[in-house]
Amino acid sequence: MNKRLYIQDVATRDGFQIEPAFVPTEDKIALIDRLSETGLAKIEVTSFTSPKAIPNLRDAEEVMRGIRRVPGVEYTVLVPNVKGCERALACEVDEINLVMSASDTHGLANLRMTPEQSLEQFKAIIEVTRGSPVFVNASLSTAFGCPFEGEVPPARVMALVQQLLDIGVQGVTLCDTTGMADPAQVERLCRDALRRWPEAVFTAHFHNTRGMGLANALAALNAGIDRFDASLGGLGGCPYAPGASGNICTEDLVHMFQRMGLDTGVDLDRLLQCAADLPLLVGHDVPGAVLKAGTSDRRYPKPAWMEG
Amino acid sequence: MNKRLYIQDVATRDGFQIEPAFVPTEDKIALIDRLSETGLAKIEVTSFTSPKAIPNLRDAEEVMRGIRRVPGVEYTVLVPNVKGCERALACEVDEINLVMSASDTHGLANLRMTPEQSLEQFKAIIEVTRGSPVFVNASLSTAFGCPFEGEVPPARVMALVQQLLDIGVQGVTLCDTTGMADPAQVERLCRDALRRWPEAVFTAHFHNTRGMGLANALAALNAGIDRFDASLGGLGGCPYAPGASGNICTEDLVHMFQRMGLDTGVDLDRLLQCAADLPLLVGHDVPGAVLKAGTSDRRYPKPAWMEG
Repeated sequence: MNKRLYIQDVATRDGFQIEPAFVPTEDKIALIDRLSETGLAKIEVTSFTSPKAIPNLRDAEEVMRGIRRVPGVEYTVLVPNVKGCERALACEVDEINLVMSASDTHGLANLRMTPEQSLEQFKAIIEVTRGSPVFVNASLSTAFGCPFEGEVPPARVMALVQQLLDIGVQGVTLCDTTGMADPAQVERLCRDALRRWPEAVFTAHFHNTRGMGLANALAALNAGIDRFDASLGGLGGCPYAPGASGNICTEDLVHMFQRMGLDTGVDLDRLLQCAADLPLLVGHDVPGAVLKAGTSDRRYPKPAWMEG
Repeated sequence: MNKRLYIQDVATRDGFQIEPAFVPTEDKIALIDRLSETGLAKIEVTSFTSPKAIPNLRDAEEVMRGIRRVPGVEYTVLVPNVKGCERALACEVDEINLVMSASDTHGLANLRMTPEQSLEQFKAIIEVTRGSPVFVNASLSTAFGCPFEGEVPPARVMALVQQLLDIGVQGVTLCDTTGMADPAQVERLCRDALRRWPEAVFTAHFHNTRGMGLANALAALNAGIDRFDASLGGLGGCPYAPGASGNICTEDLVHMFQRMGLDTGVDLDRLLQCAADLPLLVGHDVPGAVLKAGTSDRRYPKPAWMEG
């Protein structure tokens, strides 16, 4: 039980992009700099998308160039197209993260592209990365279910993973985009993927929309997954279910793994200090549980009458 | 994966007892009557404790005598002492649930009894049940950790289980009273208990205080546990951590197991209808996630522009 796990925080991209208010550039940089000192394996810094599409991340270059990059931490950015890739490469990111859907309807609704169209675009993006040391990751949305279509056949997901690897993608993130996955499904799909492509770098990305986020992470762990996306404070939300939680919470995930005796490389106290300042930064409460309850090793004083 | 699971709701006891407001007797009865029609295996109706100690449950007899008992559903009540047992037996309950702590400090703080003193009292209570068909369950609080003392050695927990079975207790609930358990610990302890006492009836009782509730339930399931306590809407709270969640949420647990293809015997739609009325009944929002997000098979309409 001492396998090293890799924890990747997506709050400053996946979280901040849907916040009602723009988080000031200097606050983003300060938060990422603090996260860089926690032992996280990877930080999804921002998205090199159109400022019109996602105004909250219109400061992508400023943030990427403003942060203090800590050796050993990978800095990744979401890249939606060739132009975004060129901008990302100009900032010398460690990794670009491409996003596509496993289901046609979600792809069209969210990206205005079918999976096949996404794959074509990925080829053009990967062409642009030739000669650069950048790592190419692809996040496969709705890999565990589509909010429009329902079940996404595992064979479909596996075929898309194969196509991604064929065109030169190095890492694949299996995303439960709207929190539809259950632990049995997660264990089956992850086990199958790891068995078929033992050399590929797989990440699991879960949402806590229906309370199963950490149970799904546990199932993925049991299947052999060692890389996990999560979001500080549980920031992120679910656009389809107002009031429901979004991404699993980084500090809750790290806390669980740490209590299980697993090595995440993360300093939980430092991470919790980052999370503690998040409500002030975004102007609202965040879903994280450990932030409210304290870690499991928290001790309470005996009732006063017992001390007498 | 089609083993039958038994889901036991504790909201009307564990939840209502700490609510700021008294839930009217007729509302309690109406809720229990609705829960009885959902396929739940067991309902912890109330507590036969002193009305002064827990004023919210001062109507224990009225509630227990007022409900419509559905064949196949077990009705259990918490019983703190001989007098409570006599009151419970007079109401012809199916089960009495005795409560003790696995740790001295929590026992003294919560029940004013060490585990050894609790065991002595249990003997007297069990004496009173002789000749009655009532099932005797004991809930072992802090079995996965004590908020005052920290770790509770597994050997200590196992020794107490042995003592409980020796004095005639038929079922034992391993309780993570303040949400300190982690999945690795849960799997070890539950596996060990089931291996040592294959004939005993074990229940797992988890809190979601640190977000691990359903992950711990999954770990207990993997260990072979088939009986789970949970609370409608996640009602319950944690007296030690204001703002933190309490009991795992019944409908979230049933939803997870159902999505995994497991048989809980519960009609999730009916259960969700009960949960949906809970906020009105208690006057505040409840932590349940599926109630907010809908079940995983919920489908969303395509964006309007895609229909054109």
